[in-house]
Amino acid sequence: MEFTAQQIADFLQGDLYGDASVKVSDFSKIEEGKKGTLSFLSNPKYNHYIYESEASLILVNRDFEPDSDVKATLIKVDNAYEALAKLLTFVERLQDRRTGVSELASIAPSAKIGENVYIAPFVVVDENTEIGNNVVISSHCSIGEGVKIGSGVRLHTGVKICSKCVIGDDCTFHAGVVIGSDGFGFAPTGDGSYRKIPQTGNVIIESNVEIGANSTVDRATLGSTIIRKGVKIDNLVQIAHNVEIGENTVIASQSGVAGSTKVGKNCVFAGQVGIAGHLHIADGSIFGAKTGVPNSIKQPNMAYQGYPAIPVAIFRRSSVVYKNLPELQKIIYDLQRKINELEEKVNRDA
Amino acid sequence: MEFTAQQIADFLQGDLYGDASVKVSDFSKIEEGKKGTLSFLSNPKYNHYIYESEASLILVNRDFEPDSDVKATLIKVDNAYEALAKLLTFVERLQDRRTGVSELASIAPSAKIGENVYIAPFVVVDENTEIGNNVVISSHCSIGEGVKIGSGVRLHTGVKICSKCVIGDDCTFHAGVVIGSDGFGFAPTGDGSYRKIPQTGNVIIESNVEIGANSTVDRATLGSTIIRKGVKIDNLVQIAHNVEIGENTVIASQSGVAGSTKVGKNCVFAGQVGIAGHLHIADGSIFGAKTGVPNSIKQPNMAYQGYPAIPVAIFRRSSVVYKNLPELQKIIYDLQRKINELEEKVNRDA
Amino acid sequence: MEFTAQQIADFLQGDLYGDASVKVSDFSKIEEGKKGTLSFLSNPKYNHYIYESEASLILVNRDFEPDSDVKATLIKVDNAYEALAKLLTFVERLQDRRTGVSELASIAPSAKIGENVYIAPFVVVDENTEIGNNVVISSHCSIGEGVKIGSGVRLHTGVKICSKCVIGDDCTFHAGVVIGSDGFGFAPTGDGSYRKIPQTGNVIIESNVEIGANSTVDRATLGSTIIRKGVKIDNLVQIAHNVEIGENTVIASQSGVAGSTKVGKNCVFAGQVGIAGHLHIADGSIFGAKTGVPNSIKQPNMAYQGYPAIPVAIFRRSSVVYKNLPELQKIIYDLQRKINELEEKVNRDA
Repeated sequence: MEFTAQQIADFLQGDLYGDASVKVSDFSKIEEGKKGTLSFLSNPKYNHYIYESEASLILVNRDFEPDSDVKATLIKVDNAYEALAKLLTFVERLQDRRTGVSELASIAPSAKIGENVYIAPFVVVDENTEIGNNVVISSHCSIGEGVKIGSGVRLHTGVKICSKCVIGDDCTFHAGVVIGSDGFGFAPTGDGSYRKIPQTGNVIIESNVEIGANSTVDRATLGSTIIRKGVKIDNLVQIAHNVEIGENTVIASQSGVAGSTKVGKNCVFAGQVGIAGHLHIADGSIFGAKTGVPNSIKQPNMAYQGYPAIPVAIFRRSSVVYKNLPELQKIIYDLQRKINELEEKVNRDA
Repeated sequence: MEFTAQQIADFLQGDLYGDASVKVSDFSKIEEGKKGTLSFLSNPKYNHYIYESEASLILVNRDFEPDSDVKATLIKVDNAYEALAKLLTFVERLQDRRTGVSELASIAPSAKIGENVYIAPFVVVDENTEIGNNVVISSHCSIGEGVKIGSGVRLHTGVKICSKCVIGDDCTFHAGVVIGSDGFGFAPTGDGSYRKIPQTGNVIIESNVEIGANSTVDRATLGSTIIRKGVKIDNLVQIAHNVEIGENTVIASQSGVAGSTKVGKNCVFAGQVGIAGHLHIADGSIFGAKTGVPNSIKQPNMAYQGYPAIPVAIFRRSSVVYKNLPELQKIIYDLQRKINELEEKVNRDA
Repeated sequence: MEFTAQQIADFLQGDLYGDASVKVSDFSKIEEGKKGTLSFLSNPKYNHYIYESEASLILVNRDFEPDSDVKATLIKVDNAYEALAKLLTFVERLQDRRTGVSELASIAPSAKIGENVYIAPFVVVDENTEIGNNVVISSHCSIGEGVKIGSGVRLHTGVKICSKCVIGDDCTFHAGVVIGSDGFGFAPTGDGSYRKIPQTGNVIIESNVEIGANSTVDRATLGSTIIRKGVKIDNLVQIAHNVEIGENTVIASQSGVAGSTKVGKNCVFAGQVGIAGHLHIADGSIFGAKTGVPNSIKQPNMAYQGYPAIPVAIFRRSSVVYKNLPELQKIIYDLQRKINELEEKVNRDA
């Protein structure tokens, strides 16, 4: 597919500067831009690349003003990164999508399959499942008994959705995701061993949720583990039983939320964050990388870091002092000695 | 299925308070309890829910005394959570279990399969494997060459057990678990690259072990990686080569144990704990979330936190001071200045 | 297979001490060594085992001198661990390897498959893939559209390689690895929700790379995520979109590298390390367990630990003082009080 700069400017409702007839047929990063490709500039840190880029067409933010000549045609838009996303999505949708059910899939007779669905080889769809329209189920997925899947859902290869779980519309789960594995619940028996607490609840995932490769979401002991609409979860993340994640919360890779914790909406977790169990986390909470949260957070829209989590500004200042601790300890012991000497001296002189 | 309060009290050997004829057919959380459901109250923190709960029947600990009227019938037991577990397990066992070997599975001719086994579609069972009685192998599992699996084992969808590994009776592995992947062993060659050390050992897992979704247990270089009986491992946990985990140790999500470390019995790991390689960890050691352990632990039954791990009581006190570090540093420098002034003054006056 | 001590000494070009005719047919750990097995001693910490070991033949480093009698025949080599690796590799290669394409695999007609390849049951090889010679693809692997795989590659069970990714020669990926899942890229839309940025790039993995079980490598938004030759990655590791990992870098379990970061060559990551996004990490950087790196590192060959990462020597000293913080705080407040008293006294006396 090939588009002119003018066609793209019209599609994005952007303002065009330069040759409107230039044609592009692929995307590129600005520092790797080649003739015939469209690139973008969003982060001012990378502004210098625009003067050398060979890309034919570059999307920029409306407030961008070049300091010197730019070879490429520019399109100014409100948000260059979002405009790129819109274009990429548009192009992705133009691509052919497979439909039909592979003869190599195992579909239970009682399963209800919607229209315009693709089911790949070696997929298992178990009894009493319901699968909506326009769903794509890639190879090696396992859809357990009684699962309900909304429309427009995309399951990449090897996704496992265990029995009774409910998936909303337009969700995307990447390769190896596990939804509805048993929660980690054991009661001590008194002799050091543990008795398993059967996990008889399920997982409910609302619409527009994306979950990254090999992440795991456990079913509730009783009731439901709930992921609200618009939540975005990265790879290798753990969501434990009976957790609730609020709308539009974003969780980066290798973070984990322990059992029965309720995370508010619009929160942001950086990587390798851990939240303890049975907590309430206020809306809009932000956690820096590797933060550990042992207590509930009541005040919304605050940023934290460290273990135990403290306000990020304090963490930054304290972590600077941390490096000085050996020196500070030495000073303290020196001061202690000096003061003792001074005291003696003053008392002797008195 | 429907049971009366009296039937349940008899089954649990509990004491019944209220209407013995009330019937229940499902479970509920106490705060979501509805008519016809059975709930439980174990943590005194949630006591207030019991006065509003619509659940028809509630299990409580023997020492629970209501402060005001409770609508539900109560059954007092020694341990309400354990009693619930017993009931859930009982109900789970009443449910039909599938048996038989799917025509869509690939079973090697030399495999020995026990009685009353279920093998789902798209399972691979390789040559010279032995699978005990009453085993359930869900879809997409891979059982490698020469693997031995005891009786009563349950493998959820997509579990991979690599060649020569040995699994004891009554183990449960959740979706995506990998047992017997190669240990991470490489020898430097001198030019900056590495030569792989072939990992020719196996993994031995004793009875009653449960392992969570997408966790990984590596085979030994030589000999065996060993998980002792009763161990409970959560999701996304890493057990490296030649590790041994002692009886009834519990390891929460995203924790990892590095190569050749021997963890004692009855230990408890919270989430995201890391233990370095080649260590000995004493029985009954307890590690708070995100603890990192760089050295062996000889004294049993102690609790640790932080990196490097220190006794939890010290960690808590030190982490409180951590927040004050910028202020303390300021005080120290102030004191230093004051003392210098005082010294000068005293020496001048002397 | 059975070899004499003399045959092994010749193969390894080592010096033989003891009975050259003794025969071995298996490997053992030195502390578990039995008659007829070959063991090794590399770490001087384990020297004492050699005097009790029942192993018939033991590889030792050239500088090893026994303090007392050793029953076993010894072979002295430059590096006992590397010599063992060489032997294990030799024996592994003697074992039969399967070839052929299973009738239970699903191979697209347009796929180009090399010679001497093994493809196991329930493998999917999609359209326009190219697979080199001597490749082993175990059960349940999924090879996406347009993927290119070099020669000598070994994919263990359940590996997923998504569309357009390129894998170099002699790579080994362990069970459950995901290559080419979507990067975690979303643009805020202004109403609290996010719009997905389609991830249209790929992953390029050069030769001799090994990746551990259930690890994930995301495709680039535009361009490529790149893993250079000789890189070794352990289990449950996350490599985000547009990352580049330099030659011969080693990354231990549960570590993660965030988006667009460029890691140099010959780096070493211990377990549970996290590197933030958009950074440059100098060649030869070494990160202790649980280190978190928020900023670029320019100086090569330095070792770091802690969060935020600081030079390891400083981290060690500071972490010792950390334990003393409550006591130091008390001393500081005491000193403050004493100085105030002294000041008063001195001023009063003056």
